[in-house]
Amino acid sequence: MGSHQTWQTLVAEKQAAQSAKIPQAWRLPPQYLVGDETSANSVMEIPVKCGILNTEELHITQDFDAVSLAKAVQLGTIAAKSVATAFCKRAAIAHQLTNCLTETMFDDAIKRGQFLDEYLRLHGKPLGPLHGVPISLKDTFDCAGVQSTMGIVSYLDHPVHKKHGTFAAILSDLGAILYCKTNVSQALMSSDSHNNVFGRTVNPHKLSLTAGGSSGGEGALVALRGSILGVGTDMAGSIRIPALCNGTYGFKPSTWRMPFFGSTFCHRMGSPGFPPVAGPLACSFDDMTLFLQAVIESRPWNRDPTALAIPWRAEVATSVPGRLRIGLILEDPKYPIHPPVRRTMESSAQALAQAGHEILPLRDFPSLETAMDLGLDSFSFDNTVEWKRHIDVSGEPLVPSLVDNTPLLTRKVEKGGYTIDEIFAFNAACLQYKAGWNMVFARHGLDVLICPGGGNDGCAA
Amino acid sequence: MGSHQTWQTLVAEKQAAQSAKIPQAWRLPPQYLVGDETSANSVMEIPVKCGILNTEELHITQDFDAVSLAKAVQLGTIAAKSVATAFCKRAAIAHQLTNCLTETMFDDAIKRGQFLDEYLRLHGKPLGPLHGVPISLKDTFDCAGVQSTMGIVSYLDHPVHKKHGTFAAILSDLGAILYCKTNVSQALMSSDSHNNVFGRTVNPHKLSLTAGGSSGGEGALVALRGSILGVGTDMAGSIRIPALCNGTYGFKPSTWRMPFFGSTFCHRMGSPGFPPVAGPLACSFDDMTLFLQAVIESRPWNRDPTALAIPWRAEVATSVPGRLRIGLILEDPKYPIHPPVRRTMESSAQALAQAGHEILPLRDFPSLETAMDLGLDSFSFDNTVEWKRHIDVSGEPLVPSLVDNTPLLTRKVEKGGYTIDEIFAFNAACLQYKAGWNMVFARHGLDVLICPGGGNDGCAA
Repeated sequence: MGSHQTWQTLVAEKQAAQSAKIPQAWRLPPQYLVGDETSANSVMEIPVKCGILNTEELHITQDFDAVSLAKAVQLGTIAAKSVATAFCKRAAIAHQLTNCLTETMFDDAIKRGQFLDEYLRLHGKPLGPLHGVPISLKDTFDCAGVQSTMGIVSYLDHPVHKKHGTFAAILSDLGAILYCKTNVSQALMSSDSHNNVFGRTVNPHKLSLTAGGSSGGEGALVALRGSILGVGTDMAGSIRIPALCNGTYGFKPSTWRMPFFGSTFCHRMGSPGFPPVAGPLACSFDDMTLFLQAVIESRPWNRDPTALAIPWRAEVATSVPGRLRIGLILEDPKYPIHPPVRRTMESSAQALAQAGHEILPLRDFPSLETAMDLGLDSFSFDNTVEWKRHIDVSGEPLVPSLVDNTPLLTRKVEKGGYTIDEIFAFNAACLQYKAGWNMVFARHGLDVLICPGGGNDGCAA
Repeated sequence: MGSHQTWQTLVAEKQAAQSAKIPQAWRLPPQYLVGDETSANSVMEIPVKCGILNTEELHITQDFDAVSLAKAVQLGTIAAKSVATAFCKRAAIAHQLTNCLTETMFDDAIKRGQFLDEYLRLHGKPLGPLHGVPISLKDTFDCAGVQSTMGIVSYLDHPVHKKHGTFAAILSDLGAILYCKTNVSQALMSSDSHNNVFGRTVNPHKLSLTAGGSSGGEGALVALRGSILGVGTDMAGSIRIPALCNGTYGFKPSTWRMPFFGSTFCHRMGSPGFPPVAGPLACSFDDMTLFLQAVIESRPWNRDPTALAIPWRAEVATSVPGRLRIGLILEDPKYPIHPPVRRTMESSAQALAQAGHEILPLRDFPSLETAMDLGLDSFSFDNTVEWKRHIDVSGEPLVPSLVDNTPLLTRKVEKGGYTIDEIFAFNAACLQYKAGWNMVFARHGLDVLICPGGGNDGCAA
């Protein structure tokens, strides 16, 4: 970063370059730009109404889930090039409505669609299980031809990646069409996807609501069908919170289940805290299965030792469950929930009971406050607060949600930081906490547990 | 521990109690006590020659592996009570020859055999896949009716366990006969199974050689067929070293693959270093499969959150391998090997090549010195050296092998101990190291890697 430039100038340049990559014909007429984050408007209908997408493109972007779209492309019913074009256009529209994108790879994606069509014609079979499926990625994943700035001003001088990182390469080898990357919370450290480079992603259902975070760009984009399948990362809710906020499916796989190489970090490597995991935001349950199965069956452990060498377990994913025993936590006394969340929980429980499952309201379970405290420890272990140094170095300020969170995320710094004794205590407490939940599952014979997805406030995510 | 008693008095009492539990009829005549640890004698033939075991007992203890013995008991061909009696007797003989036992549960085991026979008669089917299999356990595993002192004098006042710990309970529920526990290295921190409570376990092949450690009691006992299937634990070789020293099978499962609850520790809980894993020492490859499959199919994750919920993978264990690509590390320049080890390595490679497998001698691989250094970090993280405090409190001294190792195992203590910065660096280095090996496996398409099991010296194990 040249020292003669203010951070604002650098951001203005990046935003101008970002905007210039959206073709004129894909730009929304002013009457559809219906408000900003102070507005209660929904923009969910605008992709259909705005006239930018033709009938085929509307059909492609909203009459399928990823599984059925993959099938149509792989059977040759729909051209991958048409799919790529339709989703690039719709992603551009979604971005203009919610500010959900960071990087776009539209030209490459359309060429990729053409390549896939030719591949299918020549070989008579798809490149892989994701052949023809457009996949959007959180900005953290390194992709050929674009940067991974994560919305951090000091990362604006990072070079454009010459080739895909490991994760993007895995998806590409499986036949996916990578076409855009999506907005994130500043340093991934709040549940509002807001940073000084790309601004704030808003919620398409109601612009005044947050899109959640840290994978909030994915949430808004998938909700608007600007993506049929997105990839986020989740440590303490970074997939699940945006999925909840935007009404999409979202899943955090188990720790070390998915590969993680080929990502850009702003956090100090080697934390003894909880690691993040890559996972899907999607339009259907089956789409999450498609994604996870394809990635795992590619044997990612051969490229990335962070992915455990555990084969895809078809018996778990495809078995038809009988009567499930479902634990229900409606509320923790320390974390009262809002009436709409309570209503959702109660109606869900009722629907599941009517479907023949057994609902077991739990009263005696390990303290959620303990989990929160251990989570905050995990976020705060880095005494050098490396993520903040990457922000501070350019002179950019913290965004409001991170101003709120920072005292919690740096809670031991002034006391000299965590000691190794506290790491021992943390690990021992985590084991004890897990054992407590293990006993709850065993005692009640639970198959699954449902809990509120949001309390009164979101913290680190 | 009463302060009026010296540690030597307490040890003498424990040893007397231990000895008193061996019936007179099972005691070796003096002519078979052929030497101590200064002797080059082998004691491998003495269980057969000594006359304590009758023909049936010799048949039971040496003409089967655990798989075929389980089958015979479960078909009713051999009584579980006879099996229990035969192995109790042979374990008592092995103990008199190599000092391999800590606790015995002979009476309970013989009653258990009787119970299993009645169970089979009443139900017409075995209690579980380990029905009738005698299993010996490293002293760390808590069992009903005995202590878990781990050879630490200050633990001699710990109460006798009222019931089996989780791990022993899992084995018992599967039908196993638990009949003895075996000797360990002091604090499990050397590769020589020697402590002040139970003394030193020697190698039955040649009494002047070490039995290895820290699960050395298992190694000597299994080698002498005083056990048909033993359970040790392994962090840095504690199963593999005794298996190598005594000529048995031994396997360290992957981290978090096996349950670990129901063990007594002398180390500080919550270490950020490598965790230990329970695993088998056995008389055949199939016996290790029997053990692992039975434990994993019992779904141990329902009792113990340290065991990952990954089903048994029959396709890995039972598939007949074709031509394997086997990486071979003969020697690291930093760790020259002894001629006998080199000879073993070379003859193994030759035999595997003759069997049709491809041997790929590796020259370019991540430094073994780095692994050693990370391993020593892992062992040294506890600045309070809790294991040593448990030893020191009674006034007992460190055994010679631990005197040698202690400077390495406490290498940062005088400098004020490890900092959290060093934990970050350790984790990052471990990831980088794993990635380096990952690339070696990927580049050469390796199925498996064989390396020397012992260099010039053993350190912590």
